[in-house]
Amino acid sequence: MHTFRVWAPLPKKVEVQVNGKIFPMTHGVETAGSPSRSPQGEGWWTVEIPSAKTGDDYGFILDGEGPFPDPRSASQPDGIHKLSRLVDQDLFSWTDKNFQATPLSAAVIYELHLGTFTPAGTFLAAIEKLDHLVALGVTHVELMPVAEFSGDHGWGYDGVDLFAPHHAYGTPDDLKKMVDACHERGLTVILDVVYNHLGPSGNYLAKFGPYFTKKYASPWGEGINFDGADSNEVRRFFFDNALMWLRDFHFDGLRLDAVHGILDTSAIHFLEQLKVEVEQLSTQLSRDLVLIPESDLNDPRLLWPREYGGFQLDAQWSDDFHHTLHTILTGEYSGYYSDYGKLEHLAKALRHAFVYDGNFSVHRRRNHGRSTEGLSGHRFLGYLQNHDQIGNRAIGERSSQLMSLGKLKIGAALVFTSPFVPMIFQGEEWGASTPFCFFTDHREPALAKAVREGRCQEFAAFGWKPEDTADPQARETFEKSKLNWPEIAREPHRKMFAWHQKLIQLRRAEPALHDGRMDAVKTHFDEAARWLVMQRGDISVVCNFADREQKISLPPKKFRSLLASTTDVKFSDGDAMLPPESVVILKSE
Amino acid sequence: MHTFRVWAPLPKKVEVQVNGKIFPMTHGVETAGSPSRSPQGEGWWTVEIPSAKTGDDYGFILDGEGPFPDPRSASQPDGIHKLSRLVDQDLFSWTDKNFQATPLSAAVIYELHLGTFTPAGTFLAAIEKLDHLVALGVTHVELMPVAEFSGDHGWGYDGVDLFAPHHAYGTPDDLKKMVDACHERGLTVILDVVYNHLGPSGNYLAKFGPYFTKKYASPWGEGINFDGADSNEVRRFFFDNALMWLRDFHFDGLRLDAVHGILDTSAIHFLEQLKVEVEQLSTQLSRDLVLIPESDLNDPRLLWPREYGGFQLDAQWSDDFHHTLHTILTGEYSGYYSDYGKLEHLAKALRHAFVYDGNFSVHRRRNHGRSTEGLSGHRFLGYLQNHDQIGNRAIGERSSQLMSLGKLKIGAALVFTSPFVPMIFQGEEWGASTPFCFFTDHREPALAKAVREGRCQEFAAFGWKPEDTADPQARETFEKSKLNWPEIAREPHRKMFAWHQKLIQLRRAEPALHDGRMDAVKTHFDEAARWLVMQRGDISVVCNFADREQKISLPPKKFRSLLASTTDVKFSDGDAMLPPESVVILKSE
Repeated sequence: MHTFRVWAPLPKKVEVQVNGKIFPMTHGVETAGSPSRSPQGEGWWTVEIPSAKTGDDYGFILDGEGPFPDPRSASQPDGIHKLSRLVDQDLFSWTDKNFQATPLSAAVIYELHLGTFTPAGTFLAAIEKLDHLVALGVTHVELMPVAEFSGDHGWGYDGVDLFAPHHAYGTPDDLKKMVDACHERGLTVILDVVYNHLGPSGNYLAKFGPYFTKKYASPWGEGINFDGADSNEVRRFFFDNALMWLRDFHFDGLRLDAVHGILDTSAIHFLEQLKVEVEQLSTQLSRDLVLIPESDLNDPRLLWPREYGGFQLDAQWSDDFHHTLHTILTGEYSGYYSDYGKLEHLAKALRHAFVYDGNFSVHRRRNHGRSTEGLSGHRFLGYLQNHDQIGNRAIGERSSQLMSLGKLKIGAALVFTSPFVPMIFQGEEWGASTPFCFFTDHREPALAKAVREGRCQEFAAFGWKPEDTADPQARETFEKSKLNWPEIAREPHRKMFAWHQKLIQLRRAEPALHDGRMDAVKTHFDEAARWLVMQRGDISVVCNFADREQKISLPPKKFRSLLASTTDVKFSDGDAMLPPESVVILKSE
Repeated sequence: MHTFRVWAPLPKKVEVQVNGKIFPMTHGVETAGSPSRSPQGEGWWTVEIPSAKTGDDYGFILDGEGPFPDPRSASQPDGIHKLSRLVDQDLFSWTDKNFQATPLSAAVIYELHLGTFTPAGTFLAAIEKLDHLVALGVTHVELMPVAEFSGDHGWGYDGVDLFAPHHAYGTPDDLKKMVDACHERGLTVILDVVYNHLGPSGNYLAKFGPYFTKKYASPWGEGINFDGADSNEVRRFFFDNALMWLRDFHFDGLRLDAVHGILDTSAIHFLEQLKVEVEQLSTQLSRDLVLIPESDLNDPRLLWPREYGGFQLDAQWSDDFHHTLHTILTGEYSGYYSDYGKLEHLAKALRHAFVYDGNFSVHRRRNHGRSTEGLSGHRFLGYLQNHDQIGNRAIGERSSQLMSLGKLKIGAALVFTSPFVPMIFQGEEWGASTPFCFFTDHREPALAKAVREGRCQEFAAFGWKPEDTADPQARETFEKSKLNWPEIAREPHRKMFAWHQKLIQLRRAEPALHDGRMDAVKTHFDEAARWLVMQRGDISVVCNFADREQKISLPPKKFRSLLASTTDVKFSDGDAMLPPESVVILKSE
């Protein structure tokens, strides 16, 4: 027996098709346990079907059209356009009762994409690589979106069935097995969720209810209706989605994609309410649950406590730190990178997270951001690369394809000794030789063509010819983005892995590196000579970005020990002679 | 000699036409005193013309097209499509050196529309009526928008030359004379400004620069670009406008129209920055300057102090209190009034300002608002009517046309004894018999037709026939909206004026009514019998809304004196016997 429920205020008649049979649904009956927040169950349709059982396939027929997948479908075994499958989320046997999440202040995050992390590209295959992450020293696994999206492979930001794990990655139970396996190894697990738009294909939500609004425009069309009529149910849809991943799949937190795309003028912003909902679940389950937004706003309000008018989210991605590192290490200054590139920016990022905290951005052609004063560095994620920064390039080059080994190691050293929560992207730990391209698998020819051409046009502005730009629709683009695990045993990958492992151990071992206070970070640097020294308590990180050996003045402290170094270094009278593109981590005693 | 300056990043060539002669302008030269915030004066064009002088007419020619009025024109003597006139704002001889603004906590605000306040409808004519306001006891005059708009007459919310006083009201000097005359009589003066949209006719701004954005949609088309590329200058345009009215015209504050239409995701919201700009001017001039938003958001963030993440605006219009009073007194429940109508709502409005502070609104079909906890009642304006609530009706009926004299007096009593800053609309003090209709004077036939038909359609939904709906484009609609001053000497107007005068004196005299604490307000009421008693310290306001005499239980206090009453009242043993539709104001001693 199963009671089918769906919020569909737009159609005049709703039926459910279960295993090929069609059943009429009843409108406006509020049933116990219904997630409705409308009075009198308005807009909700229900029907109890005695014969329905877990594993059955079903869909909703709206005014005779359909069947369409359930907006809250838990499984789409045949993809976004086909029937939903009934799942009982309570059947899985969890073994993680004693797991405790690692707090963000002690975290090392590893971002991975299910489809390319392993050759098979499934939840179950990923389990086999978890011991590698433990050996590396990672504490958190962050999965790029797994909600059902168009085709078989893709990044996942085009999800349309937000409650269903992507069929090509495995079943809902497979995902649970993977999370359980992470917890078994002490790994905390974060899931990337997209609440700012839905994918262009398979998005049937608008047929059910007013999920979208003309009030706001997004790059994907109409914005989501977070603040207009009937927005309670729309917000509820996303809240319930967040709570489902945390409750039913045991995720320990969510990464919120591009929250600058969540436009909401309600007195209580969607993100503030989401945090409250997650806090309530956290109390109920007695588990630490975190929310980590990606934001292009440089707005500390996301992080401020609620009593200071903030949304109290736990930590946000820090693109300014990334852009600063990336430009300094690669010499790339086109597009939005033009706002960065100086050691002065790096020094500011290390002390303030935001390089743009109210000052004028030439690229944005306006003042940008606001001061992070009072916030801990542990409220920001720091990284040298991520899926976006790699994949949103014409041919998906990683940092390891864009800079020397020496510079790569400087970058890693700064990420892991920074006051931020360090994050790396799959394969970064060994300087993977494989690219991570943008790839899609849209089945509609017009959409496939638009995505392909849009991509070529985007990179034409940077001088790329269409024939050189990776074709997102080509299967080969997806295949070549898969990690090549055997290479880890070869040089220089083996040494690069060891360098990351060492940095993580060092971050864990050194109390000075546990200090989240950004205003305790000291830097001195020579912009022209291209060297910088960062001090955090008794730890000094000495970086020579230049392609020549040079003498760098050290902070006036005595009795230094060498914690880590990429090369041989000569010391004399408060100076260090650093080889080209090298870094040294010192401790004063 | 005059240096012409204009921000016009879009055209490739800009010229200025002065007294019929055309002069080329130079791009990118930042001149001293230029309000530019772009680096290197980018987008700014300047030229110094030795022969130009105050009183000259000029316009800008963009890539050969034009001349167009100056976006910052100080005067448009021939209307929105014609040349701008050069004004020297420093020539006026002010006499208000010793004027001190009345704080909002002690304010009684009088909203007026220049065009209909007097038969002549000019700044100078308005001066003759100021003594009437002083006699009434008003402290603040609030002018509906005076910025140049389409045609000769209109409400003013279609302004397009935001720096120019409307030509039909008089010259910039005339407006200064009016403000000076207010100050001479001790009257504080507030100006209504519209920063959420521009009018549909005469808006040439988009030819000069990216003032608008496709990112947000408004009922008037594209939203204003408060947060995209080049938004610094767009924001500056509005900041400078606000500062001009306060500095050059000696206004003591601004009423900000419909701030829910100001969409801005910047880390520092337009309204927060506007307040900072106004505070800086306030310090510089050593004058109290206030900002009073109209907002449909029920969001206390507008009022919260900056250190608590708020925008720190001074007070906001309180529509919930209005809607509550209006529905209870008129029995009208259509449209947005459907969310109000109970004494329970009135009791909540008096203690919390917002009836909707997070709860579900049936009309809005969503939860609405947020708690006002911690805010003083003096941060909210309370009123029985305003230009919108009167004029946005098919035939512009005032409260005096919609309810009995008794109910009108109850409404006034509650407004003036409420914890809010009381506000009345011109003529309300004598229960004016004239309507206040919506009227426009668009000269483009298509626009005139669209406005006329839109109006008819809007009210058709409420059962009004097109022929009965006041035609906004008819001159007669404007003319009949003018106040009929002689009627004030006749009954019942004379007595209504005296009632308002008495209430204002009472508010001023009674310390308990100076208390802005909303949580100090006590009410008890009988929803079915339709009576309510509000207590504020030693003052009790006893209201019988019913059309029958009834016994109302008084708060248990001794030795009452009767401060004001609309009729004879009999007292006995803690009860008062109130005639139909009457109100009594008592004091315990």
